[in-house]
Amino acid sequence: MCGIIGISDHPDASRIAYLGLYALQHRGEEAAGIATYDGGVHIIKDRGLVFDVFDEPALSSLKGNVAIAHTRYSTTGSSNVKNCQPFLVTHRGRPIAVAHNGNLTNTEELYRKLEDEGSIFQTSMDSEILVHLLAKTPNGDYKKWFSDVLSQLKGSFSVVFMVGDVLVGARDPLGFRPLVLGKLGNGYMLASETCALDLTKAEFVREIEPGEIVIIRGSKIESTFLPGHGKKKAQCIFENIYFARPDSHIFEDNVYLVRKRLGAQLAKESPVKGADFVMPIPDSGVYAALGYAEELKLPYEVGMIRNHYIGRTFIQPSQFMRDFRVRIKLNPIHDVLNGKKVVVVEDSIVRGTTSRSRVREIRKAGAKEIHMRITCPPIVSPCFYGIDFPSEEELVAYGKTVKEIADFIEVDTLEYLSLDGMLAVMKDPTGFCHACFTGKYPADIPGNKSKYLLEGKPKST
Amino acid sequence: MCGIIGISDHPDASRIAYLGLYALQHRGEEAAGIATYDGGVHIIKDRGLVFDVFDEPALSSLKGNVAIAHTRYSTTGSSNVKNCQPFLVTHRGRPIAVAHNGNLTNTEELYRKLEDEGSIFQTSMDSEILVHLLAKTPNGDYKKWFSDVLSQLKGSFSVVFMVGDVLVGARDPLGFRPLVLGKLGNGYMLASETCALDLTKAEFVREIEPGEIVIIRGSKIESTFLPGHGKKKAQCIFENIYFARPDSHIFEDNVYLVRKRLGAQLAKESPVKGADFVMPIPDSGVYAALGYAEELKLPYEVGMIRNHYIGRTFIQPSQFMRDFRVRIKLNPIHDVLNGKKVVVVEDSIVRGTTSRSRVREIRKAGAKEIHMRITCPPIVSPCFYGIDFPSEEELVAYGKTVKEIADFIEVDTLEYLSLDGMLAVMKDPTGFCHACFTGKYPADIPGNKSKYLLEGKPKST
Amino acid sequence: MCGIIGISDHPDASRIAYLGLYALQHRGEEAAGIATYDGGVHIIKDRGLVFDVFDEPALSSLKGNVAIAHTRYSTTGSSNVKNCQPFLVTHRGRPIAVAHNGNLTNTEELYRKLEDEGSIFQTSMDSEILVHLLAKTPNGDYKKWFSDVLSQLKGSFSVVFMVGDVLVGARDPLGFRPLVLGKLGNGYMLASETCALDLTKAEFVREIEPGEIVIIRGSKIESTFLPGHGKKKAQCIFENIYFARPDSHIFEDNVYLVRKRLGAQLAKESPVKGADFVMPIPDSGVYAALGYAEELKLPYEVGMIRNHYIGRTFIQPSQFMRDFRVRIKLNPIHDVLNGKKVVVVEDSIVRGTTSRSRVREIRKAGAKEIHMRITCPPIVSPCFYGIDFPSEEELVAYGKTVKEIADFIEVDTLEYLSLDGMLAVMKDPTGFCHACFTGKYPADIPGNKSKYLLEGKPKST
Amino acid sequence: MCGIIGISDHPDASRIAYLGLYALQHRGEEAAGIATYDGGVHIIKDRGLVFDVFDEPALSSLKGNVAIAHTRYSTTGSSNVKNCQPFLVTHRGRPIAVAHNGNLTNTEELYRKLEDEGSIFQTSMDSEILVHLLAKTPNGDYKKWFSDVLSQLKGSFSVVFMVGDVLVGARDPLGFRPLVLGKLGNGYMLASETCALDLTKAEFVREIEPGEIVIIRGSKIESTFLPGHGKKKAQCIFENIYFARPDSHIFEDNVYLVRKRLGAQLAKESPVKGADFVMPIPDSGVYAALGYAEELKLPYEVGMIRNHYIGRTFIQPSQFMRDFRVRIKLNPIHDVLNGKKVVVVEDSIVRGTTSRSRVREIRKAGAKEIHMRITCPPIVSPCFYGIDFPSEEELVAYGKTVKEIADFIEVDTLEYLSLDGMLAVMKDPTGFCHACFTGKYPADIPGNKSKYLLEGKPKST
Repeated sequence: MCGIIGISDHPDASRIAYLGLYALQHRGEEAAGIATYDGGVHIIKDRGLVFDVFDEPALSSLKGNVAIAHTRYSTTGSSNVKNCQPFLVTHRGRPIAVAHNGNLTNTEELYRKLEDEGSIFQTSMDSEILVHLLAKTPNGDYKKWFSDVLSQLKGSFSVVFMVGDVLVGARDPLGFRPLVLGKLGNGYMLASETCALDLTKAEFVREIEPGEIVIIRGSKIESTFLPGHGKKKAQCIFENIYFARPDSHIFEDNVYLVRKRLGAQLAKESPVKGADFVMPIPDSGVYAALGYAEELKLPYEVGMIRNHYIGRTFIQPSQFMRDFRVRIKLNPIHDVLNGKKVVVVEDSIVRGTTSRSRVREIRKAGAKEIHMRITCPPIVSPCFYGIDFPSEEELVAYGKTVKEIADFIEVDTLEYLSLDGMLAVMKDPTGFCHACFTGKYPADIPGNKSKYLLEGKPKST
Repeated sequence: MCGIIGISDHPDASRIAYLGLYALQHRGEEAAGIATYDGGVHIIKDRGLVFDVFDEPALSSLKGNVAIAHTRYSTTGSSNVKNCQPFLVTHRGRPIAVAHNGNLTNTEELYRKLEDEGSIFQTSMDSEILVHLLAKTPNGDYKKWFSDVLSQLKGSFSVVFMVGDVLVGARDPLGFRPLVLGKLGNGYMLASETCALDLTKAEFVREIEPGEIVIIRGSKIESTFLPGHGKKKAQCIFENIYFARPDSHIFEDNVYLVRKRLGAQLAKESPVKGADFVMPIPDSGVYAALGYAEELKLPYEVGMIRNHYIGRTFIQPSQFMRDFRVRIKLNPIHDVLNGKKVVVVEDSIVRGTTSRSRVREIRKAGAKEIHMRITCPPIVSPCFYGIDFPSEEELVAYGKTVKEIADFIEVDTLEYLSLDGMLAVMKDPTGFCHACFTGKYPADIPGNKSKYLLEGKPKST
Repeated sequence: MCGIIGISDHPDASRIAYLGLYALQHRGEEAAGIATYDGGVHIIKDRGLVFDVFDEPALSSLKGNVAIAHTRYSTTGSSNVKNCQPFLVTHRGRPIAVAHNGNLTNTEELYRKLEDEGSIFQTSMDSEILVHLLAKTPNGDYKKWFSDVLSQLKGSFSVVFMVGDVLVGARDPLGFRPLVLGKLGNGYMLASETCALDLTKAEFVREIEPGEIVIIRGSKIESTFLPGHGKKKAQCIFENIYFARPDSHIFEDNVYLVRKRLGAQLAKESPVKGADFVMPIPDSGVYAALGYAEELKLPYEVGMIRNHYIGRTFIQPSQFMRDFRVRIKLNPIHDVLNGKKVVVVEDSIVRGTTSRSRVREIRKAGAKEIHMRITCPPIVSPCFYGIDFPSEEELVAYGKTVKEIADFIEVDTLEYLSLDGMLAVMKDPTGFCHACFTGKYPADIPGNKSKYLLEGKPKST
Repeated sequence: MCGIIGISDHPDASRIAYLGLYALQHRGEEAAGIATYDGGVHIIKDRGLVFDVFDEPALSSLKGNVAIAHTRYSTTGSSNVKNCQPFLVTHRGRPIAVAHNGNLTNTEELYRKLEDEGSIFQTSMDSEILVHLLAKTPNGDYKKWFSDVLSQLKGSFSVVFMVGDVLVGARDPLGFRPLVLGKLGNGYMLASETCALDLTKAEFVREIEPGEIVIIRGSKIESTFLPGHGKKKAQCIFENIYFARPDSHIFEDNVYLVRKRLGAQLAKESPVKGADFVMPIPDSGVYAALGYAEELKLPYEVGMIRNHYIGRTFIQPSQFMRDFRVRIKLNPIHDVLNGKKVVVVEDSIVRGTTSRSRVREIRKAGAKEIHMRITCPPIVSPCFYGIDFPSEEELVAYGKTVKEIADFIEVDTLEYLSLDGMLAVMKDPTGFCHACFTGKYPADIPGNKSKYLLEGKPKST
């Protein structure tokens, strides 16, 4: 997962981009970058959180009123600065920069073809392939140029380009990843989520459509569409469940309200009788827990306090620190939990080990009974479109019954939301990809699935 | 405000101290330091958050099984590394280190006397005075030595010392600041709040009593008491209202439950009829808002989302960034607030400008009516015992009626909790200092009050 | 100017390369880099002196027994890390690295042609062009591959390549820049000068011939030759006069002895009668001054002491510091100079301003008469083959008589060595380029000369 | 050894001090510091060379027209920033800074006495003792104040103080270390050597006399004298032989000319018949070698080239690098040395291992016979007054005959200059300390000599 931003025609483009990245920080904590254009091109990118990478002198040096920006999710430990985005080259005197969210599934084929023709690659990023395709393709008319290039891609992509002072945004035909359009002064803003528009006081205009390419020159905007546009959608439902910010409006709905509805539906499907109160695993479970409690008229309590001062040290902790890791993030309150029968609402379970640690902490703090409720079905299949799930073998739900999972994470009872229940509370129940719950992939996956899995995790950018 | 830690007889004293500081990070974000002893003394301290100051090699270099540690609250911009704590000297071959939370009110007199006798000071910290007093006082018996030194102090102090391998903790006779004792393996742990014991898996033993001095040698602990001990208490009620962590147990109560009771009491005193829901100003208002909503059986909603990625940049922002500051921290959700009559629960109001900004954001997001409720009385007087309030003139409540304050912060109605109502929900209603609400100071204040205020803000460490 | 190194088949290739760069530090103080190969490729390069760029952990991380290395001369202030060498890419799984000394004169044409075919350039370095040519050229047989590529180049180049574990070295057909071959253990060492062989205890084998390409695989070495090889030579005489280290043996002679012979020849052509003593401008004038003094049986004195602690501060000094700059480097000794008639021997004069400053210092220290003698003819034309002279207008000798120059630098008399005298003391009087003294260029120069000068200084790497 | 600087009444005091330190860099490469006063006090000090420690912003921040400065010689590896000078405290509102060159021999007694009276020390530096003595001593009249304090000291000291805007300089009664006075604009400059005056364009006035204290306020200067002043002198002859810069004028003579006279005297005492030429060990042996060659009318050659790019890496080299260390600094020239009978002139021999390495290099480069001549007698006793010789056992001359030393360093013949010959060429043959050659100490040494040596090396600052 990653977050992307594009800005046109704003005198403080770099600062707006910075604020936008700030709002999208949850989409990627590993690296951040901004490129701007004012006749010449300026770029700063580095590993670290947005506020580590940029300071005021940095933002001042990023001159120009066009910008694109990127924040990157950590997928592997070996990542280095070279692989940060935006990716920038200058070709025939014209700077081309790109920032990409998603995962191409025909990377390998494209890479080999280009190298055989003499292209020299600097990185292993999908976004560099985009740039080489642009350099190799005749480029008089932007609509045709970008259509020709982007129609060669398979998989998921929400992407922004800066070519000189032209800003281009595009979303793959199935619309896996979100991309929204806002109006900001005379110009436009593109962002992964609306929370970035809110923070920069941009006015939400609409979402970029699946398969749409927008070409923005200053305050002028044009659209063209990729083949396959408008047929079917496969929006990532996991953005709603976990990934997107609750204050964002994406896929034509408010994330917070979707999560409350998921909680309420879960309460209807799997109530807990005689519970003393409902509590979330903070912060992601808060909204569903409120929906669950409200539906059943149960009290809602904050049973664990989250410590928000989580630093770099704990990203690569020593063994000693590892033992304290769960507790550092969430401290259960004995005076609240002692002797109580509690419903714990969590958005999802991936490996199950973190959930188990938390359950143990809650029990040590005195809880008498722990009933866990999950706001989606069991996750059983890998994602090839950008969510960084582990391999099937590491998924706790893979090949286990719900009872077995409950035993593994040491709860008294465990219930998942049903697939139908989950889709039912969405505005467009047929418009979502649910392959991680069902294994039904809406688009090509690379090679054959099992070979892919043997070779390593899908690369997400 | 500051947080302090002491550890005796633990093979990983520096790491335990580090975790303890982590848990106390909310008590001071400006600087952090740890000193340990293993025959020789080791110290690392610097400006920054705990996880910025220490990394694994740093912790490994802090050898020894005795430690004291400190995290410092930013009171002025001019602070430098020299003024970080613990403060350490070596005198006659013996290292003496000290970490201090509170504010002495006779600093000036003590400083002049010592310098006239030839003492050379390195810093302007209260804690250096403590060390010079220790060096000047005959020191065969530790109980007498520390009694003789600490009985010369006026004002508030919770303090830990490390003298060679001896750990000493003490609290002023009125008990302004908290200090708790835990058992950890063979040894002991001292900490400002119990959340530090929870994180390090230390077992809570008891609070250090007001006026108590504990001398800890390995697993052996002794107490002695300062003159004035046991007569009256003046514990800082603002620790309960705002400062301490909700999962801490201090002043013989759980902070989370105290705050829920404050919210419930506030609901009884000042209900809002026909409100659609109750919402907090996150995070500090959450617990009182839950108490308020529960008491009146009103829905509780998260009307604003807090962004927890707040970095250094926004500590000293440029003018451009300043405009976005409020919104960066808290984003109101239009889909939740639009057209609603809302009760907003906040712990306290100091200058009023931040509250006003937030009220404006809530209203811009569509709220129809905003009724603000505050879980303490109006703050009208400065604190000389360690809380860093601004001068009287900057306090919004100073010389204003509640109606005038409501107008200033632009709410439809505003109500404060009553002094009696606030004290009534405490376990020991007579054991607290409430000078900031009443101007009735329980102990000496420096010189005459107005002169003090002219000269500058009280120094807090 | 730059210094280059290549190492094959040595277990400590990076450390040997480091020592080699150390010995070549005088050829470039701006940046340094080393690339090694051990199955994978490793590279570290940065701005700064060799000992600033590398430390022991850096050298340890540069694993492998093949290495190339580069030290770069500062030609412009705007240089950045990206333009440091070696330049490295990976193409079709094979790493290609290059380090280059010299100046190509058909850069522009090659660059345009490659970009039109879709190549994307990362830098503005000549060495990147070499890599793109290698990527575009069929590459089964290394002799043919490198011949095909290098025969497209015009201008001066001494260059080393590392292609996987194959080391390649080459020198342009006129042999402008030096390149020597040594034997080190089982393998070979290539270096700009023999002083790098001395330091690493490599045994000098021979110089790479003008127009020769050597292909080194482990301990096996093969040669091939470029068209034009063996016809005429245009070795840079300025390497002998000023640039190379006095302890180096290049162009089939020892630099120290050449300089002594130049001094002796100068003494014969332009003696000074009744001089008290001969002194050099240290350090470069020392060897010629000894030759001059010995020839005339005059005393030799150190009239100025050179301070060797010259740091970065003085590279970009403030105005205040600028005033002290000359004196910081060289301090004249009053007790030696006072009342004396002195001969000052200097290797060359470029702008004349530095010489004038030094003359003034010597006079202020009491010298009665100053007679300056220069070990080469007046410099009147720019160099297109790698020496970074200023434009003609800035050359003090351009359009001035020797008398006018003497007046400008404020000496009593000034004499230059004659062209014939200079060439006469060389082992191969016809084998040198002397275009800077005569304007007779032995090879193509870019475009027409004056246009080139209008557009900017020649780029040297 | 160290270098010290004092400046009064100059608008660019920090920059002048910086230039002064630059000129004195040879007296200490480990650390540097400057303190200035402009109503408040400013100080910057750190480990490193002068140009590493200070940059332009640093110098700009050191405001004021009074300054003292210090450059420190590395005596042990464990040195840290805390022990850098100037040492600064503020006492009773008045800043006191001190910079010291020399070695006190009653440190221990003074330290114990002060600590028993309650003084707390921050460092283990002699200079901190000076400050505590100043703080404890009544201080109305500066002449009396400094006389009272400095007369308590034993051993060697050349020292500068800055007390507010008053500059004080002093030299111990025997005058071990140099200290000179210059006039600079309206004010004065104090410096260890005149080369610092030359660089800053200050006019040399005179040397501070042994036992003299000068009190400088702006452009006003007064003197007072310590007991013992004017009786006898014990100036350090090793300053002349090795330590001071050749362009300095100290102890009433020019160092360069002294060294030439030492070389000439050595030639008279120990000529080498039939030698091909005389060469120095650069750079320190250059001047004596010129004197030697001139006396005997032998040619002078530069047989080894010194590489002046010696960086930090080689200060603490790995084993691999250690093997190359000697060669990195000095490269012998085969074409000059091959087959020759050479006289090698060196200033002194301490441990002998470095000399031996160089002799081996010269022989490997082809020299047929090597005759070494040393410009002082054998060093056989430790120095208690500031020169950092190793213990007796490590001195190559301790307990060995000259023949045995010659064998150890592997030369054909070896001769030292005689004590009488050395003193004879000095202007004041009776005014020098020669204890390192004779063991006759002119002043108290700490405790008994052998006990002192057991406990560790003398501390020099």
